[in-house]
Amino acid sequence: MDEQKKRAQEWFESLQTQLIETFERIEKEATQPQYDTEPGTFMRKSWPHSGGGGGTMAILEGRVFEKAGVNVSTVFGEFSEEFRAHIPGAEVNPQFWASGISLVIHPRSPHVPIVHMNTRMIITEKLWFGGGADLTPCFPIEQDTKDFHVALKQACDPFDSAYYETFKQWADDYFYLPHRGEHRGVGGIFYDYINSGNWDLDFAFTKAVGQAFASIYPEIVGRHVNEPWTEEDRKAQLKKRGRYVEFNLLYDRGTQFGLKTGGNVEAILMSLPPVVEWRAA
Amino acid sequence: MDEQKKRAQEWFESLQTQLIETFERIEKEATQPQYDTEPGTFMRKSWPHSGGGGGTMAILEGRVFEKAGVNVSTVFGEFSEEFRAHIPGAEVNPQFWASGISLVIHPRSPHVPIVHMNTRMIITEKLWFGGGADLTPCFPIEQDTKDFHVALKQACDPFDSAYYETFKQWADDYFYLPHRGEHRGVGGIFYDYINSGNWDLDFAFTKAVGQAFASIYPEIVGRHVNEPWTEEDRKAQLKKRGRYVEFNLLYDRGTQFGLKTGGNVEAILMSLPPVVEWRAA
Repeated sequence: MDEQKKRAQEWFESLQTQLIETFERIEKEATQPQYDTEPGTFMRKSWPHSGGGGGTMAILEGRVFEKAGVNVSTVFGEFSEEFRAHIPGAEVNPQFWASGISLVIHPRSPHVPIVHMNTRMIITEKLWFGGGADLTPCFPIEQDTKDFHVALKQACDPFDSAYYETFKQWADDYFYLPHRGEHRGVGGIFYDYINSGNWDLDFAFTKAVGQAFASIYPEIVGRHVNEPWTEEDRKAQLKKRGRYVEFNLLYDRGTQFGLKTGGNVEAILMSLPPVVEWRAA
Repeated sequence: MDEQKKRAQEWFESLQTQLIETFERIEKEATQPQYDTEPGTFMRKSWPHSGGGGGTMAILEGRVFEKAGVNVSTVFGEFSEEFRAHIPGAEVNPQFWASGISLVIHPRSPHVPIVHMNTRMIITEKLWFGGGADLTPCFPIEQDTKDFHVALKQACDPFDSAYYETFKQWADDYFYLPHRGEHRGVGGIFYDYINSGNWDLDFAFTKAVGQAFASIYPEIVGRHVNEPWTEEDRKAQLKKRGRYVEFNLLYDRGTQFGLKTGGNVEAILMSLPPVVEWRAA
């Protein structure tokens, strides 16, 4: 098991490094005059976990990426009494180990979609992988939505021909605000409890999802990063971000999981947008 | 019972009218040059409740009060299966009737405290009153905190000498963000399930809480409304508002109650601030 833990953790950390380089390059290369400040760079900040292990946040407050958080963590300990019943394999033995990467990007331009991606490996008496990625444009563009989904489908298909449809449906059900009767965005994939019996295969799937994301999101950013935006576009974005906050605080399982397992509050709530508005109609 | 329902509903509505007049007067009278727009007025908007009854929101987006919501509602229907277990008297008969007033004020000036007040009467197989008020300054001022609490204590004391201490403690426990290890503000009172066996007395208590609020909050606003503020003060306010959002979406019972009983989403989430920031560091 130790070898598998090590390989998973190293992968999540290497993906963090790769994504940081990508986003910093985009920061530098943007030419639109509305990006009126210097390109930003990621700040790293490590934190210890109360049970054991810890994580490293990397956060950028830049000109293209108004707030981008790319976090990795590898933590272990015991699930609280309250939480055990909800976790496979934790009813009897509350010990857990979890490693993963989690990112949320809030671009400055209303034409560049918000995005979330997370993959993780969890060990209790059982072992499984989970994750997902979903795109939240203020102004959905059909081609972007299609390409985002195609990239995820291509990552899924080699592993199980049912994965994409299943995980897309799961994302549609999950990234939904019942009180608004609205989806959070244009979907993506969401999955959990993946254990095919072949660890190497499941780990390869995890890497494929990460690489698909690392390829398609920068591509979509590139299509819109230098488009100008209006004050009205910006208003629509600040309102859309409010829905994002509502989802993350009312429904997001990662937020609940993190807050209930002694996770780092700053890292968990890094997903919240830098500026948000809730105006009356 | 019908007579009691009618009197309660009429009181909540008359308090709404009174508070609207008070806040509109303050809007008009402010002289500080940072209030650089015309005084605002409340817009009223009625909504029907799916089970029966409905409510009237009154919302102001003004210059002193960047966002002020003063809502009344009188609704009835049946609690959902999921919700019944948590409501006294609803296990057997899920029918309910509820009437109340609820307000949250987000002032523009960082020196004027955010405030919340709510009182309500609920009927299931049982009947009770609940409510509370709490003050959330960005920069707490000892005299304001003291006077706010004294006003609430004076409202409580004629009815039961234990009320204030009990309800103050309840507010301290309730208006708390465990994930931050922070209280939401400087407290106030919080109470529920009040039924002394004497409806007139309990109704008088409800009115006393409302009048205490209607007297002390405008007094505190008046002390600070014309103080200038800096960009840095404003930043602190936008951050503090983020904590307010976290409380309302993660922990607030009224939000949960409203969203789970088919309440009006716009009215329920009117408590969210007009502009909020979650910046790193």
